[in-house]
Amino acid sequence: MDYLKVSSKSSPASVAGAIAGLVKDGKPVNIQCVGAGAVNQAIKAVAIARGFLIPAGLDISCSPAFSDISIGGESRTAIRLAIYVHRIQPPSPPSLSDEIAC
Amino acid sequence: MDYLKVSSKSSPASVAGAIAGLVKDGKPVNIQCVGAGAVNQAIKAVAIARGFLIPAGLDISCSPAFSDISIGGESRTAIRLAIYVHRIQPPSPPSLSDEIAC
Repeated sequence: MDYLKVSSKSSPASVAGAIAGLVKDGKPVNIQCVGAGAVNQAIKAVAIARGFLIPAGLDISCSPAFSDISIGGESRTAIRLAIYVHRIQPPSPPSLSDEIAC
Repeated sequence: MDYLKVSSKSSPASVAGAIAGLVKDGKPVNIQCVGAGAVNQAIKAVAIARGFLIPAGLDISCSPAFSDISIGGESRTAIRLAIYVHRIQPPSPPSLSDEIAC
């Protein structure tokens, strides 16, 4: 499985763009991060990606799991986030009658 | 709305127990955390809580959002995690035929 690898130095906005692009293309999204700083950037990226997707009628959530990985021969515990996609009602544009009522 | 407030010093296992209890009781769960260490503990808690809930046929995911809050008169950006509950098929117990096959 392919993972978007997020580090503490990753830009949340860039990662958010990658998440939103994959979700819009209907592709599965999985994120891998090691360390508190990386988890924080990944979660900020998911929050930003929600803002990109909600106007298109899509929302996302993430399901975290621990995973033992090896980095440079050293064993580390990574957090993997599986992204779930939820179809939502897009916000409806204001109708003429709404404008008259105002 | 009530929030489970998680800090960098919170025990992920304790927070996981609180999340699992609320989910089993059918109550809404929302988590608030400020700072990378707190977000990391909260995400670890969600991962642990999944392990408590999956045998009961429930899975969870979390949807992060930014929120401006005031702590001691100072403005801070918190991450709020809304917990979504997903009903899943609980793992079926091994049947007699499985045991014979082994």
